[in-house]
Amino acid sequence: MSRFAQRYAYLRRLVDRRLSSVVKHSEPRDLADASRYILRGGGKRVRSTLVLLSCEAVGGRVQDAIDAAVAVEMLHNFTLVHDDVMDNAPTRRGRATVHTRWNLNTAILVGDTVLGLAYRSLLRSTTPNIRRAAQLFTEGFIDVCEGQAFDLEYERRRIITLQDYYRMIGKKTGKLIATATELGGLLGNGSLQEVDALRTFGTKIGRAFQIQDDLLDVVADAKAFGKTIGGDIVEGKKTFLLVQAFQYARGTDRKVLRPLMAGQTPPATHAARKRLIATITDIYQRCGAIEAARNQIRRETAAGIRALHALRPTIARDMLQWFSEMLVQRNF
Amino acid sequence: MSRFAQRYAYLRRLVDRRLSSVVKHSEPRDLADASRYILRGGGKRVRSTLVLLSCEAVGGRVQDAIDAAVAVEMLHNFTLVHDDVMDNAPTRRGRATVHTRWNLNTAILVGDTVLGLAYRSLLRSTTPNIRRAAQLFTEGFIDVCEGQAFDLEYERRRIITLQDYYRMIGKKTGKLIATATELGGLLGNGSLQEVDALRTFGTKIGRAFQIQDDLLDVVADAKAFGKTIGGDIVEGKKTFLLVQAFQYARGTDRKVLRPLMAGQTPPATHAARKRLIATITDIYQRCGAIEAARNQIRRETAAGIRALHALRPTIARDMLQWFSEMLVQRNF
Repeated sequence: MSRFAQRYAYLRRLVDRRLSSVVKHSEPRDLADASRYILRGGGKRVRSTLVLLSCEAVGGRVQDAIDAAVAVEMLHNFTLVHDDVMDNAPTRRGRATVHTRWNLNTAILVGDTVLGLAYRSLLRSTTPNIRRAAQLFTEGFIDVCEGQAFDLEYERRRIITLQDYYRMIGKKTGKLIATATELGGLLGNGSLQEVDALRTFGTKIGRAFQIQDDLLDVVADAKAFGKTIGGDIVEGKKTFLLVQAFQYARGTDRKVLRPLMAGQTPPATHAARKRLIATITDIYQRCGAIEAARNQIRRETAAGIRALHALRPTIARDMLQWFSEMLVQRNF
Repeated sequence: MSRFAQRYAYLRRLVDRRLSSVVKHSEPRDLADASRYILRGGGKRVRSTLVLLSCEAVGGRVQDAIDAAVAVEMLHNFTLVHDDVMDNAPTRRGRATVHTRWNLNTAILVGDTVLGLAYRSLLRSTTPNIRRAAQLFTEGFIDVCEGQAFDLEYERRRIITLQDYYRMIGKKTGKLIATATELGGLLGNGSLQEVDALRTFGTKIGRAFQIQDDLLDVVADAKAFGKTIGGDIVEGKKTFLLVQAFQYARGTDRKVLRPLMAGQTPPATHAARKRLIATITDIYQRCGAIEAARNQIRRETAAGIRALHALRPTIARDMLQWFSEMLVQRNF
């Protein structure tokens, strides 16, 4: 394992340990159990790691940002619990979702509570800029909700352009990643210019990260991914691939894509779903949407890394670069 | 109209106006529409009025606390939207609930967003104590979620004691009212002792307020109340009246109450529901539960008002007393 990979594993464990001990009480029982279940559910801890590395990249220490890092991770988990309800998702990271394992009411309340615990953790940060930190966090939170609302709205719209797509993912995914890097810079007491650079880095990387996620739905290793391959296709999600392919495709291909874009009902049988996934994946490949996704990921990542050049060259900065490259090259 | 009533009407309009202008954008459409619908839904604005009056009672100005007052009102509205989903409530204040008029997903997201907007407003408060203010607000928020979880849990429990009941309402209702008064004192730059007194006042008044709410379910003027009389009985809610009556009642009465306490299925027909409400109301009356509720409301209110004596005698303090007495004597 490289030194960076070791460091990442260390930071991830640090965050995991903190998240494991957040819920201390055992009552009300379902709420306490389900909150613990969520916070101990693992995950890549991307956002918290970005908070910590961004803090270090401006000369701060891990301990300056750990409360905020844990808070951002909880904010992310809050969105997962509520999104899973809205998307009717039965599993997440290979485990039953809260509304499946418990029920709808518990899922709503667990989401709400985890968000409250996130603010509690954030407000423990010992920075003179606590107002600014809480404001950043709050704007991230509001945008994530709006992004999810756009996502739901797009399910009912007939045509989604790339511009619509970028607006949606900018709020739903990108903003929280930019919040993570900006918050890290703020808590590390970075200069205005450094904090700006970190936000730009986060925005670009967040975009690349989401396009990569869309791409993985089609090309990932199913087992490592923890989700069903082609899930986005079956659910008619407005991914980068679909939106781009609909723009590129002509003739029969475009006709095949049209009902997907218009939000057709998913096929009823397993065999029909498999056929649909194969057909659509083929079109994505043929019309150049997959290549366009890979190019776009590369461009956004490069732009993000360029923004990092405004920071002094440090090991932490190099590690931020390593981490973002790893994220967008992942196959899980 | 008395001077106090006029002042209350003025503060209420002030809060209403601020709430009306919170949502400025029009997209994503459902989210924006439903958020506006909620924030313009009226209500007594009890919590925001308490923030403002508490601020004045320690020598602060309305403008010092208005952002926090609006925030507390939004926090309250967030809980209403999510609670209505969990309770399957079709109407609230005489209007369709969000999940009825729109759908479940919009209701979840509107709740989340309104909470985000609440934090945004709170964080605008110009106080050197912004960390403490946000912490108070967050602890109120977490407790409200836990209180709701206890409420749901109690639906499945066979026996609820008065102690259980007080724990639940202390979190679900009392805490947010205590948060309102404490926050007002903090933003008005009150002394530690003054802020403490305001918290105690809020805790007591909050308790009285909830018992009054339980009582109104049975004795209110249906039209002014905006809810169906006997709704708590039909739904088997663990109210003060039920818990107290179950403790007081003997013989047949206790036998009649037992299935209600154990969470029986609500009667299917309108006539059967009416009969159940009449029977139970009769028992509440006969066994002394209604009288006990009235006594308890009086005791808690008196204790709350006693706590106010730690503040200097001002018009604002008198108005706080007037406001709390009005609240617990209301029949709507």
